[in-house]
Amino acid sequence: MQKHSIPKGTRDFTPQEMVNRNYIFDTIKAVFQLFGYQQIETPAMENLSTLLGKYGEEGDKLLFRILNSGNFLSGVSGEDISEGNLLKISSKLCEKGLRYDLTVPFARFVVQHREKIVFPFKRFQIQPVWRADRPQRGRYREFYQCDVDVVGSDSLLNEVELLQIIDEVYRRLKIKVVIKINNRKILSGITEIVGQKDKIIDITVAIDKMEKIGLDKVKEELINKGIDSAAVEKLQPILLLEGTNSDKLRDLRTILKNSQTGLKGVDEIQTILYLLDNHQFAMPVELSLVLARGLNYYTGTIFEVQAQDVEIGSITGGGRYDNLTGIFGLDGVSGVGISFGADRIYDVLSQLNLFPATADTQTKIMFACFSEEGQRFALSLASALRSAGTGCAIFPDTAKMKKQMSYANDRQIPFVAIIGEDELLQQKVTLKNMKTGEQQLVTKGELLLLKLG
Amino acid sequence: MQKHSIPKGTRDFTPQEMVNRNYIFDTIKAVFQLFGYQQIETPAMENLSTLLGKYGEEGDKLLFRILNSGNFLSGVSGEDISEGNLLKISSKLCEKGLRYDLTVPFARFVVQHREKIVFPFKRFQIQPVWRADRPQRGRYREFYQCDVDVVGSDSLLNEVELLQIIDEVYRRLKIKVVIKINNRKILSGITEIVGQKDKIIDITVAIDKMEKIGLDKVKEELINKGIDSAAVEKLQPILLLEGTNSDKLRDLRTILKNSQTGLKGVDEIQTILYLLDNHQFAMPVELSLVLARGLNYYTGTIFEVQAQDVEIGSITGGGRYDNLTGIFGLDGVSGVGISFGADRIYDVLSQLNLFPATADTQTKIMFACFSEEGQRFALSLASALRSAGTGCAIFPDTAKMKKQMSYANDRQIPFVAIIGEDELLQQKVTLKNMKTGEQQLVTKGELLLLKLG
Repeated sequence: MQKHSIPKGTRDFTPQEMVNRNYIFDTIKAVFQLFGYQQIETPAMENLSTLLGKYGEEGDKLLFRILNSGNFLSGVSGEDISEGNLLKISSKLCEKGLRYDLTVPFARFVVQHREKIVFPFKRFQIQPVWRADRPQRGRYREFYQCDVDVVGSDSLLNEVELLQIIDEVYRRLKIKVVIKINNRKILSGITEIVGQKDKIIDITVAIDKMEKIGLDKVKEELINKGIDSAAVEKLQPILLLEGTNSDKLRDLRTILKNSQTGLKGVDEIQTILYLLDNHQFAMPVELSLVLARGLNYYTGTIFEVQAQDVEIGSITGGGRYDNLTGIFGLDGVSGVGISFGADRIYDVLSQLNLFPATADTQTKIMFACFSEEGQRFALSLASALRSAGTGCAIFPDTAKMKKQMSYANDRQIPFVAIIGEDELLQQKVTLKNMKTGEQQLVTKGELLLLKLG
Repeated sequence: MQKHSIPKGTRDFTPQEMVNRNYIFDTIKAVFQLFGYQQIETPAMENLSTLLGKYGEEGDKLLFRILNSGNFLSGVSGEDISEGNLLKISSKLCEKGLRYDLTVPFARFVVQHREKIVFPFKRFQIQPVWRADRPQRGRYREFYQCDVDVVGSDSLLNEVELLQIIDEVYRRLKIKVVIKINNRKILSGITEIVGQKDKIIDITVAIDKMEKIGLDKVKEELINKGIDSAAVEKLQPILLLEGTNSDKLRDLRTILKNSQTGLKGVDEIQTILYLLDNHQFAMPVELSLVLARGLNYYTGTIFEVQAQDVEIGSITGGGRYDNLTGIFGLDGVSGVGISFGADRIYDVLSQLNLFPATADTQTKIMFACFSEEGQRFALSLASALRSAGTGCAIFPDTAKMKKQMSYANDRQIPFVAIIGEDELLQQKVTLKNMKTGEQQLVTKGELLLLKLG
């Protein structure tokens, strides 16, 4: 037989995996809706003009491009080929590309539909994205993102609600996490007071590694990046700030007293924590001054969530961007949002054995029949059960008992109703509990009253 | 501002559209699960070797191909370009294509995972597919299919359950439909007894148009296709068979008495109707001898569903195929399945105004605040409501009353809880019913006890 497979970096999902994946998506979606967010979807394909230049040079290379329909070679000359400029040729061969993330399509959506959108627009979106990355363990070429964003409001209440959403999602999933927050303005302030304002990216990239490589290595990297040692010495006490969030904020106020931007960042964090104050969080919220993700676009609050019991990196992240739609020419639309990484969450739940033990949650009972008359009886019983909302299956073939039982077993269906000749004569079924092995003869009425599964 | 759009034939879905679309998907999915079917998903991309040659020459042209990553030109010579053989060049440029339907990926899935699958395998799959068709009203380049199939069982009980699924889905959606069935073997038998066995495709393509163009035009087309007039005269009484399903079966038995295949088809339909016998169907099931879809692959029962109150063609269709996985070298796996066309169902529900009138089903109440203290109070009330499962939103900005009210109105949120200075002092909210305009001052305890939405 021919060997058939799927493109590398992509996956099939079996029924059991789908049950588990839906458990994650349904949980996240329910929480998004509880907080008043509304779902949208965008097409898998976007025009390349929408996508190109939004993810850096590296990102452009990782876009999956779709060959134009019809005569895709029109416009490509022999000269182009001999010249061999792949980027130029691909832009002639392809007008469309697959969605690389949900943020850029969302920005495009907001600009395109701005007349009809009610702002502040609280949207969520759960869809796959595609990246021509080198596949490796835990990194796929097709994977789902679960994004929740609000645009058209600069209120810090949005940040507070996003923190609540994170807390609630992980409380429901029973994953212990640490929620880390920081603020781009605090990072700016820090680089300002150490006199290296223009080196914010180098500095933050280095200090972001504090937890992984420790203070000495970070200092080494800073020196290597050309930060002078006086500045590095000035940075050190900031990196080592300890204590509660209030302690850190108090110390920061002193440290950043000469940076207006820095103090603005401190104020923002303080407001968020104040608004959060009287809420019982299941998960700790921790001000982390070394948290520095997405500095190319985040302008205010930065979020990152790490699982406590599994080493897997960030499982949720996000932040505030003051000008999401600026890339499409619509300025002044501030937004803040976070993205849940469904695949990493899946891995965490797997490793910690936290998926609910409901393999085939929907099929509570299977009918085993051995004749057409038996099937007719099963059909009428199944209809009655389904009308009452109980999912059930009839083994479609009049196969041997063993085969039918083994099927129910494999699918982990909790009950089997056996309809042999005797049962048919009595218009009853022998109900077998597949877990305990117990059997009892029951009527249709009794069957309908039983609590199955 | 730059104009931004999406590729032709694709669509964005707004929150309202998503609510409606989810209503369709959730309804279909719930019924599939009630009948013991299990969900799978396959990647958006398949290897072109999996897809090519499965949809005919025309289908191959309609596949969206994905440009290879990296040096996609390696292998393409200047000679290829000057030769201009598009199919040859595209197969060098592209190894992958987008899913064109759910059936071929399902067949590939079954073959690839056959060792792990529990047969009979009852699977459903709800995912988008892509076709480079010319976009037109009601036809898109990206659209969803909802497929339900069972493979590894040739029992007609499966057909019966699929009919029940169709009936139940449309009963729940409140769409009146006619469910038409036929059998490929009956069609074969008919062509056999009129002595035109080799012309089955020509004959069935013509008679399939009976309802649209009438008997005379069908006869004309048959003659034009080279069917001799004696055969056409022999066909006529069969096309005009009337009466109940039993009447038709009785007459067919006589007509087809010299065709073993034909009689086998009659037996199959009769068994299906016998098994269905004691079931109350909401929708009529009608044996239609002129129903002739998918004859390239269907080998037994053929299904088609038409809406009674809207002219839109088939909204569900399917049939039995004796050798689904044969295309991938695994013979002897019989299957039967149907596909629900979500987009056409959407159009029917829209035209008949059958969508439930729940625009923003999830957000029952919005808090309107005018100060940070008000927001803090709102946050604590919202948390309590959410813990009780009530979806709510806090207007994030301390904007003017009018703006906040208009937002709630636009989003059709049924209640607004106003937190002004007075309310804050009393630790109460003024609850406004947005439909009636009624207002009342309530405590937190009272708010939690109210039935909202």
